[in-house]
Amino acid sequence: MPSYTPPLRDMQFVLHEVLNVIEDLNAIPQHADLDADTLNAVLEEGGKFASEVTQPLNLSGDSEGCTLDKTTHEVTTPKGFKEAYAQYVEGGWAALSCDPEYGGQGLPFVANQCFYEMLNGANQAWTMYPGLSHGAYEALHAHGTDEQKKTFLPKLTSGEWTGTMCLTEPHCGTDLGLLRTKAEPVAGAPEGTYKITGNKIFISAGEHDMAPNIVHLVLARLPDAPKGSKGISLFLVPKFLVNADGSLGARNPVFCTGLEHKMGIHGNATAQIALDGAVGTLVGEPNKGLQAMFVMMNAARLGVGNQSLGLTEVAYQNALAYAKERLQMRSLSGPKAKDQPADPIIVHPDVRKMLLTAKAYAEGGRAMSIYCAVMLDKALHHPDEKVRKDSEDVVALLTPIVKAFITDNGFAATNHAMQVFGGHGYIHETGVEQYVRDARINMIYEGTNTVQSLDLLGRKVLANQGATLRKFGKQIEALIAEEGVNEKMAEFINPLAVLADQMTKFTTEIGFKAFANPDEVGGASVDYLRVAGHLVFAYFFARMASVALKKIASGDTDPFYLAKVQTARFYFARLFPETASLMRTARSGVANLLDTDAALA
Amino acid sequence: MPSYTPPLRDMQFVLHEVLNVIEDLNAIPQHADLDADTLNAVLEEGGKFASEVTQPLNLSGDSEGCTLDKTTHEVTTPKGFKEAYAQYVEGGWAALSCDPEYGGQGLPFVANQCFYEMLNGANQAWTMYPGLSHGAYEALHAHGTDEQKKTFLPKLTSGEWTGTMCLTEPHCGTDLGLLRTKAEPVAGAPEGTYKITGNKIFISAGEHDMAPNIVHLVLARLPDAPKGSKGISLFLVPKFLVNADGSLGARNPVFCTGLEHKMGIHGNATAQIALDGAVGTLVGEPNKGLQAMFVMMNAARLGVGNQSLGLTEVAYQNALAYAKERLQMRSLSGPKAKDQPADPIIVHPDVRKMLLTAKAYAEGGRAMSIYCAVMLDKALHHPDEKVRKDSEDVVALLTPIVKAFITDNGFAATNHAMQVFGGHGYIHETGVEQYVRDARINMIYEGTNTVQSLDLLGRKVLANQGATLRKFGKQIEALIAEEGVNEKMAEFINPLAVLADQMTKFTTEIGFKAFANPDEVGGASVDYLRVAGHLVFAYFFARMASVALKKIASGDTDPFYLAKVQTARFYFARLFPETASLMRTARSGVANLLDTDAALA
Repeated sequence: MPSYTPPLRDMQFVLHEVLNVIEDLNAIPQHADLDADTLNAVLEEGGKFASEVTQPLNLSGDSEGCTLDKTTHEVTTPKGFKEAYAQYVEGGWAALSCDPEYGGQGLPFVANQCFYEMLNGANQAWTMYPGLSHGAYEALHAHGTDEQKKTFLPKLTSGEWTGTMCLTEPHCGTDLGLLRTKAEPVAGAPEGTYKITGNKIFISAGEHDMAPNIVHLVLARLPDAPKGSKGISLFLVPKFLVNADGSLGARNPVFCTGLEHKMGIHGNATAQIALDGAVGTLVGEPNKGLQAMFVMMNAARLGVGNQSLGLTEVAYQNALAYAKERLQMRSLSGPKAKDQPADPIIVHPDVRKMLLTAKAYAEGGRAMSIYCAVMLDKALHHPDEKVRKDSEDVVALLTPIVKAFITDNGFAATNHAMQVFGGHGYIHETGVEQYVRDARINMIYEGTNTVQSLDLLGRKVLANQGATLRKFGKQIEALIAEEGVNEKMAEFINPLAVLADQMTKFTTEIGFKAFANPDEVGGASVDYLRVAGHLVFAYFFARMASVALKKIASGDTDPFYLAKVQTARFYFARLFPETASLMRTARSGVANLLDTDAALA
Repeated sequence: MPSYTPPLRDMQFVLHEVLNVIEDLNAIPQHADLDADTLNAVLEEGGKFASEVTQPLNLSGDSEGCTLDKTTHEVTTPKGFKEAYAQYVEGGWAALSCDPEYGGQGLPFVANQCFYEMLNGANQAWTMYPGLSHGAYEALHAHGTDEQKKTFLPKLTSGEWTGTMCLTEPHCGTDLGLLRTKAEPVAGAPEGTYKITGNKIFISAGEHDMAPNIVHLVLARLPDAPKGSKGISLFLVPKFLVNADGSLGARNPVFCTGLEHKMGIHGNATAQIALDGAVGTLVGEPNKGLQAMFVMMNAARLGVGNQSLGLTEVAYQNALAYAKERLQMRSLSGPKAKDQPADPIIVHPDVRKMLLTAKAYAEGGRAMSIYCAVMLDKALHHPDEKVRKDSEDVVALLTPIVKAFITDNGFAATNHAMQVFGGHGYIHETGVEQYVRDARINMIYEGTNTVQSLDLLGRKVLANQGATLRKFGKQIEALIAEEGVNEKMAEFINPLAVLADQMTKFTTEIGFKAFANPDEVGGASVDYLRVAGHLVFAYFFARMASVALKKIASGDTDPFYLAKVQTARFYFARLFPETASLMRTARSGVANLLDTDAALA
């Protein structure tokens, strides 16, 4: 049975020693009084909830899965899921970073980020039930009518009701412009009321027994809507209609007609949903549903990165424990555990390489995600408009990197962890193969990682001639200027400086090629995103090493700091060099991919 | 539902146009009369068996799995498995490359290689039942007593009985020196008869309902055996004892006590086996069981590479078909299917990259595996002793590369194929996620890929100062000399020549470092194996491109040749450049892995 220890020390290091988030947050009026102790205490309690309440349900939830009663259309979640959710609601966890106006606790988004990392590490499938609600909460908060807000936001904030995102249809996933679900005005009903008909698939947390009502946010077409993505509107379709007094009314014909048999996240109900004239109300403006949905999708993309961050950490922890305890073979340089029949496998360099890869991916991903979350807090609430705009740009730039880089790394990391277990890793009861299966979906949903890479290179970089990238680059330059003379930092700063320099030329070069042939973007984007991911990781590892080295120099003997330096060193020596090959393949041009009609006949 | 088309054309290309295997085989007395038509006809029939008989059972076998009756210790395999096996035996397929002395058809090993690629592509879990028998056949053929051979080889050859390899115990997998199963002489029984007691785990095809008897080859310790790996002996332990007249006698107490719940290969029974004083007979010499077992293990390692080769091919085929039919988004360079609501996703460069990666891994792996199989035929049966020795050396060198490189590539390829399917790839019914789960075990069993890399760098390269590597290098040099002046081949020959040159220095450098610190081998070996894999792939892709270019120049308009050139071009532009980063990380030294006690505390 796997176990999970919340990585509180590393979170605190990033939050307070590296990023100094309290200072940043205190500049935002609603977080002016927040202090480190409060934030730490919340995360400590959150970690307890994750490790004690939801983690013990992870393996059993995977074995058991969800079941649908085809007559009642009701779904039963795995044993214990419902009770854990009740505890979650009772503990006020759903409200953590929600708006106090609707009953929220008003903590910054970064608190939720850290809390959700732990929930995901403990049990991704379970966490998707409350996780999806957040997207619905945010879309309604940003685009809902007063009536919608008044009726639904308090319930979503408390967690009493949950939410979903109903986008995908059998014939359209990435390309939502193709969707067919129809919305027709209801004669005699208040304006903005429609009957919605169509079929949705892949609806995570789409039906379950954990809450009395489910708030579906559904994309559909109005009768006179233009074709394509400019004719899509967003609707709120509750499972049960809500009476004027807030009590539950009639069952809305929005039914779960099937559950997918998936590779992983078995504990989450991935529903096929049939809308058969279900009553819904318009959210935001007609035909502008995609824009409203993007509020949810951007948050969801950061959330998906966070899922793999959690899995990376928990897979690492369990593989590390196994590597210390499993005795097998002797070290090549002679026995290390002479009193034992064999050495623990952690003596073998490649076992360490696999463990350190997972550890470095977790720590780099954590730094990037926490940074990004604070930027989001600033983008949403900072009193200075320029700070808001700058922060928003950085979040926009980093979102596809968080989503794709962390989930690709997470799949590699969980697989490395599994490999450390050898044959035992392939067995369900060990728990690590579940992490691999669960992590696999994160590379696909909320926009495949290829889509993320096109978003990064096309929209976030080339569309503004690299302006946002240069904005982030300024921070890197500042670090280089500050630490460039520090000999002890040379092993971290030098490769970072080289890559930062190459990145500018590399980007310009692709930009010129893309100007002549737009397909060049698609030929380079996936490699480009990985290079960008390494640039960001290298920056944060250099910053983290700098803090750690200063602590060590000051006489602090906490082994945490030496550990951080060793992990940073490993990162630069063993993971970062991938950039050399990636730039070469990205530069090879799109012809070797497109002039292949004979090969792909 | 996935489909499978046997890749006969590509096999024939490698067999006859690139490697000219008939010429090589005809130099071996027992294959002197073999011709291309016969070989092709056998493979065509074999492909039919795979695609028509076992492929349709793959997805259902995965869903259904195997079940154990805990009272009778009998295992039921998925529906249809037993009947397919009966057809296999009846068709004489088990006997394909077996010794005619025991009823075999005497075809070369390379025929079996190609046949098994197709069986694995069709249904890896099913194929492991007959596949494991081959290992038992070979160990008995090489080391069995006359009595053992007479009794068991005809049954294993016909496929009437199947075989297993019982190595692993709960506390020892890689490190067989730790094993505890005991063999005690039976007083009054013929010499070489023992009672065997112990517990084995992870026994593939360890129990099933497909054959009336199962021949277990079991590693155990004699009473007076030295400690460690020098005290292990090999025993033949049949499920049912065999009477003098060949009929089945008493049930031997070798019982399946449990089946593992695995990530994949659900159709194969991975058994926990309890031996409770089971009667067995010694195979080979006392305390030399590991050597005898290595006969099986080496063949098994090539077999595991072949499993991932099959999965790579079938995953590619299905992803290609989907990419042509799934309409989603428009090409970045403008609509391509203007009469459709969207373009087929194959217009997107990164979709092509994923498909071509799988295709190139399949074709490179096929060329290497077929080459290796012919070398094995020569190693076993060539009349010239020097040819036998040289061939054996090349097989020894390539075996860990076939096992680890093809299985690592196969996992990447099946994941790429799954990614092409987007969300649909995560759903069981689509079939491709099963390929990912099945492919995952191949990186672990029969020696993890880390163990393979240590075998390659430590035993096959450094232990003989690179002599075998130079032997293979001579072939590369010959190709470079032959094609170095051909301008059209420059894009293939130049990178090959550069890497061949670097490889010598790279190997020498690691050798020197390892001389000072043996752990350096473990710090470099995994990266080293991937570089070596690319050297071999680059060599075969250059050879294949050369043949194809000559055909095109001669006016042959079969699009197969242009396809091959395009795939080779893709390989060199997009996959081969990984070597740049790998050499850099391998060179970074073992300190960044071993001086990490604080990080891995």
